[in-house]
Amino acid sequence: MSEIIKLAQFGLGPIGLEALKLAAAKSWVDVVGAVDIDPAKVGRDLGALTGASNLKGRHVHRTIEDLLARAKPDVVLHTTVSKFKNAFDQLEALARVGISVVSSCEELLFPQLNNPDLAAKLDRLCQEKGARIIGTGVNPGFVMDVLPVCMTGVSREVRSINVQRVVNASTRREPLQRKIGSGLPPEEFRRRFQEGRAGHAGLKESLALIAHCMGWEAKNIVETGDAVVADHDIRTQFLEVKKGQTCGLHQRAEAKVNGKVALVLDLKMYLDAKNPHDAIQIEGEPPLDVIIQGGVAGDQATVAALVNTARRILKARPGLLLMTDLAVPCQA
Amino acid sequence: MSEIIKLAQFGLGPIGLEALKLAAAKSWVDVVGAVDIDPAKVGRDLGALTGASNLKGRHVHRTIEDLLARAKPDVVLHTTVSKFKNAFDQLEALARVGISVVSSCEELLFPQLNNPDLAAKLDRLCQEKGARIIGTGVNPGFVMDVLPVCMTGVSREVRSINVQRVVNASTRREPLQRKIGSGLPPEEFRRRFQEGRAGHAGLKESLALIAHCMGWEAKNIVETGDAVVADHDIRTQFLEVKKGQTCGLHQRAEAKVNGKVALVLDLKMYLDAKNPHDAIQIEGEPPLDVIIQGGVAGDQATVAALVNTARRILKARPGLLLMTDLAVPCQA
Repeated sequence: MSEIIKLAQFGLGPIGLEALKLAAAKSWVDVVGAVDIDPAKVGRDLGALTGASNLKGRHVHRTIEDLLARAKPDVVLHTTVSKFKNAFDQLEALARVGISVVSSCEELLFPQLNNPDLAAKLDRLCQEKGARIIGTGVNPGFVMDVLPVCMTGVSREVRSINVQRVVNASTRREPLQRKIGSGLPPEEFRRRFQEGRAGHAGLKESLALIAHCMGWEAKNIVETGDAVVADHDIRTQFLEVKKGQTCGLHQRAEAKVNGKVALVLDLKMYLDAKNPHDAIQIEGEPPLDVIIQGGVAGDQATVAALVNTARRILKARPGLLLMTDLAVPCQA
Repeated sequence: MSEIIKLAQFGLGPIGLEALKLAAAKSWVDVVGAVDIDPAKVGRDLGALTGASNLKGRHVHRTIEDLLARAKPDVVLHTTVSKFKNAFDQLEALARVGISVVSSCEELLFPQLNNPDLAAKLDRLCQEKGARIIGTGVNPGFVMDVLPVCMTGVSREVRSINVQRVVNASTRREPLQRKIGSGLPPEEFRRRFQEGRAGHAGLKESLALIAHCMGWEAKNIVETGDAVVADHDIRTQFLEVKKGQTCGLHQRAEAKVNGKVALVLDLKMYLDAKNPHDAIQIEGEPPLDVIIQGGVAGDQATVAALVNTARRILKARPGLLLMTDLAVPCQA
């Protein structure tokens, strides 16, 4: 287990920077460089950029090709976009040279849902070149998909799975507070959700992953999104919301199996949310009723999931993989 | 995923019989026979023994050799003994002919703890012959080991792991009600625990598995066991306990890492237990606080874990494996 893994970071936004710093602190990681298109970052020394002294002498490159001209990582942490089709060229460039990827791209949790042809193409390339590609995170990637599946390992029978997640967005970073529509008129938020310009990415993928693992045909996934409306004036570290404005989102995905609703994922992320938590109810034999008090903290957990998965993925077979194909999650 | 797995049941006690019946109900299982030394069972038709019509024409054999003369299973569900060294000859006989085993043998969860040499020998044999052997169940096998490890998949850092399990033994089968010492004078129960003749098997193995996954040296595991003393007269379906007699056990294993207690597993199984539940606290980044309300039901979940693992193990590399080596648990 003392093998050193060469790792590069692709995308230096808030999550990417934190993932890079966590990876740099691991005894089994040798960071060989990073990639970002931001002209303010290209060429910079990673030691100076992150404050991690063991990153001195490693740099930010503008493209993957520039990075590969200098070093060949075993695995890349990829934190650039939410849509699989937008990530495809980046992932293909890495798979083509046999480099494995752990990505926070939300759709990559179950890329077969929206882009089955692209997924099949990338899977073939990975198998041919010995690369592994996977999407993970805390949500999607753990709380509303992998963990419920894991619970069913002790189930004789599963009739339905119901997952709720309530996040107090007041404790989260600014981009998330804005992403959930804070300050918008509720009707404006609803319009943006309908147009696909607002909302949490990956909820349908979480549902599709659970259905896949249960062997269920869940083709008609219904997803709804609504504004949570502030019932009082709210001020966070980053912004202000007046009573009556949007202070968050309530998103829900559900699917019927054999005519009955058997899968429900219900997500609320809003400012000043009371009683943040994650909950899983599995109706079956035995019944299972799980609560994570306080919930699993979003950004920290996503960064951890990326880095922890980087070690596990290299032991898996090549291919475009699902989190449930890998060994049991574990801090690494 | 529609591949049929040939399966045999080794051991036809209460857990073995239930596992056999559950396996027989799965579309991906073809039961080829069973093994038990009980003269009252040897030679019997499994259809008659279990009431499962699709088991008609399959029989109980007295030995593994007798079974193998008639059929070669891909995987055997093994439910005979708690100690790895007592199971060794049975497991070796199966590994030698390349048959994989999923066992409820408690020590097999982490056989390296008590018998590292036997474990290494069996691992070599498995690799040579293409067999996989694993120990699983609900406890050990899930609630107090695999699930806590799984939670750390979203941990940046883990400082300590504390797991509690409270089981209301009044709801369990008779052998378990007796195993926990019901009706004994407390001093007699304590003496039996000290002599290794009473108590829950596998708690130290659960702790050792977590330590292994965290990369922790936890060599000095301290295990204690005490009687839970009835504070009122108790009558169950199977037995009676007077106030002042033993009505269950309180067993605890803990280990220090770098001089501090970092792993605590605390198990209470007693009659009329209030608020049965499982709980996991992980001190670290982020902190994690999980509760399974009502707890995971013991026998049903163990049977499910055995059968569900039978499908997953055949996709793993050959060897004497740990549950955390396999893909994420999943109902199959």
